[in-house]
Amino acid sequence: MSDLSYPKSKTNKVNRLGERGKYDCKTVHEIIASSPVLHVSFNTASPEDFPVVLPMIGKLGSFENPSADLSEPLDLYLHGYVSSRIMNIARSSTKENSSLKVCVCATKVDGLVLSLTPNSHSMNYRSSVVFGTVNLVTELDEKLYAMKLITDGVLAGRYEKTRVPPDGAEMSSTQILRVSIETASAKVRAGEPGDYDKDLKQEELLDRVWTGVIPMYTTYGEPQPSNYNRVKEVPEYISNYVKDTGDTEREYALAAITMDEAGTA
Amino acid sequence: MSDLSYPKSKTNKVNRLGERGKYDCKTVHEIIASSPVLHVSFNTASPEDFPVVLPMIGKLGSFENPSADLSEPLDLYLHGYVSSRIMNIARSSTKENSSLKVCVCATKVDGLVLSLTPNSHSMNYRSSVVFGTVNLVTELDEKLYAMKLITDGVLAGRYEKTRVPPDGAEMSSTQILRVSIETASAKVRAGEPGDYDKDLKQEELLDRVWTGVIPMYTTYGEPQPSNYNRVKEVPEYISNYVKDTGDTEREYALAAITMDEAGTA
Repeated sequence: MSDLSYPKSKTNKVNRLGERGKYDCKTVHEIIASSPVLHVSFNTASPEDFPVVLPMIGKLGSFENPSADLSEPLDLYLHGYVSSRIMNIARSSTKENSSLKVCVCATKVDGLVLSLTPNSHSMNYRSSVVFGTVNLVTELDEKLYAMKLITDGVLAGRYEKTRVPPDGAEMSSTQILRVSIETASAKVRAGEPGDYDKDLKQEELLDRVWTGVIPMYTTYGEPQPSNYNRVKEVPEYISNYVKDTGDTEREYALAAITMDEAGTA
Repeated sequence: MSDLSYPKSKTNKVNRLGERGKYDCKTVHEIIASSPVLHVSFNTASPEDFPVVLPMIGKLGSFENPSADLSEPLDLYLHGYVSSRIMNIARSSTKENSSLKVCVCATKVDGLVLSLTPNSHSMNYRSSVVFGTVNLVTELDEKLYAMKLITDGVLAGRYEKTRVPPDGAEMSSTQILRVSIETASAKVRAGEPGDYDKDLKQEELLDRVWTGVIPMYTTYGEPQPSNYNRVKEVPEYISNYVKDTGDTEREYALAAITMDEAGTA
């Protein structure tokens, strides 16, 4: 199942620097899954309005096939306050038997790429863009599935450690959206700076300008207990998560420097 | 000039958890300025299309008033490849004497906020959303101003250290957009977890669940020279930038934990 890809279309095709485009589910989904925040754009009521993009928390999963991994077809679950703007628009669309369309983007910056000329400067990065239609989650079982998915997506194993299931007020104040992914793609830039031959021939330039990559990655610091915390030691599932996630981020940013431009090791 | 704010309107008002909304230029602009990547949404040709959001690099500045600081009115300059989709749409709009509208969002995650129940989990974060109209930058001086602004925005002082000015091919392959900001707002969450009284009264829960904040921040690693770099030592403007920017990020994430929920120290 590891070769499943989103077919290229007018909607998802990476036009500029196409060699950086990736369409396999695994690459596209991994970027979304490892991003703490997604940027969600949705069509507003009137095309005369400004477009909108908002940060939201969302996680990939499959209620029908909960053991599916990131290389398989998945839905994207977004959650939010029941009367927020996107939720109101999603409900109106549903009432009118139309589906709200969304575009969701996740971007990870892995390094600053410093070259000889301003225009050849770049960043090492991974971004995913997903296009889909929104369905309101109304079934209790699926809603609970999504709430666990989202909580565990923020910190693996957290859901079961807390006071669950959510009570009536919590259930009714939270709206879950299931985004059926219609198409998607990723774009990845890795490796060293890439300068043009004409600049690489200028001895004076090469002697003067430092070129290279400054790796960038998210660090998870020491967990800080709340003023009402009574659990003396930080539990292992938290300290392991902090260590593992931080290690993964740092190792990728460093490994990316020796990859080729399209992110192949 | 430090009190300038974007007036609240239907477009920029933070509805949900309004106490987290910020409208002053300084807060809104600082989040944009310190984000390596912005997420840009724009209206496509047909409202039947999917909405679009893409990662782009952009920096705030004022060509008319270049010494303006982040607490003053500023434009947002975005750059991209001349024939990318947003640039094509921006050019068509200009030809038709209409202005492409964009929404630009920057988000920084400062920590995971772990509380007693899944629903009261949160993140410490800072996000800015800017609404504006796009103008193609056609004047040479403004284009060079924007190119320097963007390069120095990625790494302070970098532009003058490289081979400048950009040559003819570089100038013509790059399109700069000036976004005139019509309105904007920020949303900031900081502080400790916030649990409901009903949960804080449950002794069993308090004895069992670790609550607190895991700080998150971007780390800049050791600069790695390219395989054609000849400058033996990492120049001071680079090592200082790496240290200062990393320190600022880490210090904010830690300081945020002791702020109130709306991000006041």
